[in-house]
Amino acid sequence: MKVHVLTIGDEILIGQIIDTNSSWIAQRLNLIGMKVSQMKSISDELSDIKSQLQLSLNAVDVVIITGGLGPTKDDITKKALAEFLNVPLVLHEETLQSLFRFFTKIGRDPNTMDLAQQAQVPENTVVLPNKMGTAPGMWLNTGLGKVIISLPGVPYEMEYLMENEVIPKLQTTFPSEIIIHKTLLIAGIPETTLSQRLETFENELPHFIKLAYLPALSQIRLRLSCSGDNKQLLEGLILEKTNQLHNILGQLVAGEDEDTLPVVIGRILKKNNYQLACAESCTGGFLSHIITLVPGSSQYFKGAIVSYANEIKEKSLGVNPVTIEKYGAVSEETVIEMLHGLLAHTNADIGVAISGVAGPDGGTLEKPVGTIWVALGSKEKHQTFLVKAGKNREKNIQYAAYVSLNYLRLFLLN
Amino acid sequence: MKVHVLTIGDEILIGQIIDTNSSWIAQRLNLIGMKVSQMKSISDELSDIKSQLQLSLNAVDVVIITGGLGPTKDDITKKALAEFLNVPLVLHEETLQSLFRFFTKIGRDPNTMDLAQQAQVPENTVVLPNKMGTAPGMWLNTGLGKVIISLPGVPYEMEYLMENEVIPKLQTTFPSEIIIHKTLLIAGIPETTLSQRLETFENELPHFIKLAYLPALSQIRLRLSCSGDNKQLLEGLILEKTNQLHNILGQLVAGEDEDTLPVVIGRILKKNNYQLACAESCTGGFLSHIITLVPGSSQYFKGAIVSYANEIKEKSLGVNPVTIEKYGAVSEETVIEMLHGLLAHTNADIGVAISGVAGPDGGTLEKPVGTIWVALGSKEKHQTFLVKAGKNREKNIQYAAYVSLNYLRLFLLN
Repeated sequence: MKVHVLTIGDEILIGQIIDTNSSWIAQRLNLIGMKVSQMKSISDELSDIKSQLQLSLNAVDVVIITGGLGPTKDDITKKALAEFLNVPLVLHEETLQSLFRFFTKIGRDPNTMDLAQQAQVPENTVVLPNKMGTAPGMWLNTGLGKVIISLPGVPYEMEYLMENEVIPKLQTTFPSEIIIHKTLLIAGIPETTLSQRLETFENELPHFIKLAYLPALSQIRLRLSCSGDNKQLLEGLILEKTNQLHNILGQLVAGEDEDTLPVVIGRILKKNNYQLACAESCTGGFLSHIITLVPGSSQYFKGAIVSYANEIKEKSLGVNPVTIEKYGAVSEETVIEMLHGLLAHTNADIGVAISGVAGPDGGTLEKPVGTIWVALGSKEKHQTFLVKAGKNREKNIQYAAYVSLNYLRLFLLN
Repeated sequence: MKVHVLTIGDEILIGQIIDTNSSWIAQRLNLIGMKVSQMKSISDELSDIKSQLQLSLNAVDVVIITGGLGPTKDDITKKALAEFLNVPLVLHEETLQSLFRFFTKIGRDPNTMDLAQQAQVPENTVVLPNKMGTAPGMWLNTGLGKVIISLPGVPYEMEYLMENEVIPKLQTTFPSEIIIHKTLLIAGIPETTLSQRLETFENELPHFIKLAYLPALSQIRLRLSCSGDNKQLLEGLILEKTNQLHNILGQLVAGEDEDTLPVVIGRILKKNNYQLACAESCTGGFLSHIITLVPGSSQYFKGAIVSYANEIKEKSLGVNPVTIEKYGAVSEETVIEMLHGLLAHTNADIGVAISGVAGPDGGTLEKPVGTIWVALGSKEKHQTFLVKAGKNREKNIQYAAYVSLNYLRLFLLN
């Protein structure tokens, strides 16, 4: 089952934003055994949209369009779809009512706005209600069993509609063979080393089981996919292969399925009834951010001191100014004092302290950009780590945070 | 002058990597007045590559291909190009010699490798020497004045070849019309209201000037694009229209071009020699994170207290437990005390304090998920705001942070 993804918007074609929707859609469709065979980014022009729709429908059964659904003048996807299908745009009453409720709720007067235009859809459209925004998703049957699906370009709206509306509807409309996936979250090993470690395992996999590496910053998702007709057999096989991977990789396996490092950490902390706190210098709040993105994190996260200025390191964390002067703010000595100051001040059971040179400036010969010190542990026992990251500020911040979380995971486990 | 960009590689179609090359190429071509009218990602299949090449050459004069040139990919792009142009693959002597030198230099024996295959190109190719890697770039004239340009998929190799070989050669081969862009960052107004406010302005734009809306969370980028032959005239027109937008929108214009709210805030703080600090509850470090993503933010950012637990609000920020008990942690009274405690503790000139219900749990009838209180200002003068966000935890966190930054911008300006 092949799918084309069409991204509409001049902002992509001039390189102002990078299309991440197509990639997300491709990954998600893969999980239900559908394959994106082409991704196209095209302009906000009626004729272009129509001719590309035609080309794609000649080649595949499902075309997913993102973008061009906003209320402004340059958003013309709906008009293009109506012209392409040779149907009028008609008012969708439920969408109009939901827009009315939405704007009333956020304190704006819906009567001053042209909501009717926003609530229009091509005739015969199956409207996919968008609980995350104002532009509805649309499912349009084009005849001959082919389908056009139009979604907003805003990623979280698109993702919501894919998960809750499109995927279930695709699965019932185009039933395919059974695919079972199992994902393991691997942390603390580079991809090349991991693939060497798994060479024999991979070579011994039967042809209907595939292993995919999905690398992210300092983490890799390993995905086993197994397809066939007999669900019970497939589930047994996946379980067997998953257990083999656990045996080979041990504590390198940080979690399963949708787990992320912050989720895994949260689970361990809750289980042990530990309270966590952070002292962040170069990561500037990012570590606390990814920890608190997890719903319910207030159960185990006390808070953080983002000690960007040395003055805050001294005042809030009790770091000795002499330590900073002698060893530098980016040093093992300083992060240890940050950690102990943090634990004393917040009364947390476990703490993480990070100080580094995120860049692009601030590097020296001895401590180049990407030099990051981490201390973590409790009042009784702590560990320190020197992390060597790269030259990109944003990546260094993210890398430092995720690597620290993985060290924290191992500390808590052992 | 229109260009298509073709990206070749299954790793893109399964969503494993995100294509950033097309965006980079589009931005770079825009600067010389060339316009990417389509970006396509296609699979590593011969027939697919050939048919997409034909489609693109029917539509435009220049097709740029990236990817499929590595030795592991069986040189599928070169084979496809040779078949498409109906010419044989021939050995390119200079490329062979440079491969020989390269592998000798990095300590591998070139005699053990099939370099001849790597040094083959379709007959009549103008080879573009790649000093950053082993796969050469290729410039292929297809007749009728049309050109196919094939580049490696590795971003820094592609970028090197574009800058040093492709751009100069395109400029001499296709002298073109000029395109000028101007982008304004708009904050504090919903897209629908903005488009109503700009209706007359938009209707009065000449046909060769376009206005695009690029919305992001609580911000909108407005982009004017203007194309023609007379650079001076176009620059004058864009300036005039930009000034008109400034007049219509006033302080809703937060910045220009690549500005972001954290960058704009940083500029105002530096100019006034102010030091900033944050007290974050529901945003959990995200506000500090986006502030410190800006290089050089240590010049004006002191740090933050992420007071996730009420205990930290009391201990680190001096919030009175009675205030929390009486009004709740999410209340105007609490954020005011957080702000004053923050300013006293950090000695910062300006502070921002946020407390809210990010969700999915913790909402009440009186304070549903998405209720966020913000206090900001100095010891002498502060303001408070009640922000009503939605139901999505991640979006609420981001929204609260960006809305607070915009309130901070207006506070600092007025």
